[in-house]
Amino acid sequence: MKAKIVITPKKAVLDPQGKAVQNALEHMGYGGIQAVHVGKYMEIEIDGERESVRKQIDEACHKLLSNPVIEDYHFQLE
Amino acid sequence: MKAKIVITPKKAVLDPQGKAVQNALEHMGYGGIQAVHVGKYMEIEIDGERESVRKQIDEACHKLLSNPVIEDYHFQLE
Repeated sequence: MKAKIVITPKKAVLDPQGKAVQNALEHMGYGGIQAVHVGKYMEIEIDGERESVRKQIDEACHKLLSNPVIEDYHFQLE
Repeated sequence: MKAKIVITPKKAVLDPQGKAVQNALEHMGYGGIQAVHVGKYMEIEIDGERESVRKQIDEACHKLLSNPVIEDYHFQLE
């Protein structure tokens, strides 16, 4: 089974990396950009029963993979 | 319009960050993990006509946001 995890900064948190990418794109001539948010993406290939994998991944996201104070995460299992 | 971009290391490229996450998860007691891949995720909010936005984002991914030698990217527009 494969878990696809997306971790993004919370909306209320400053995202200097996103701002830097936005500035770079504007300097390269790309117009109409309203906002850029930069986060992390992870794929975890894991064996097990679907519900137990879901619980494990959720716990791992909360404890290790993200910082719940400043980041949100969501994932899907395939 | 919002572009959701996922950038991952190519399969043939070493992914030490993924290996580190895998080791950390195993040390925390999570079993059954076959592989972990770590990549980047970006959301770009951009105005414009759909096809022209698609072309711009594809070009930006190729030129700035990813390193096509060692990374793959894909994105979707919403």
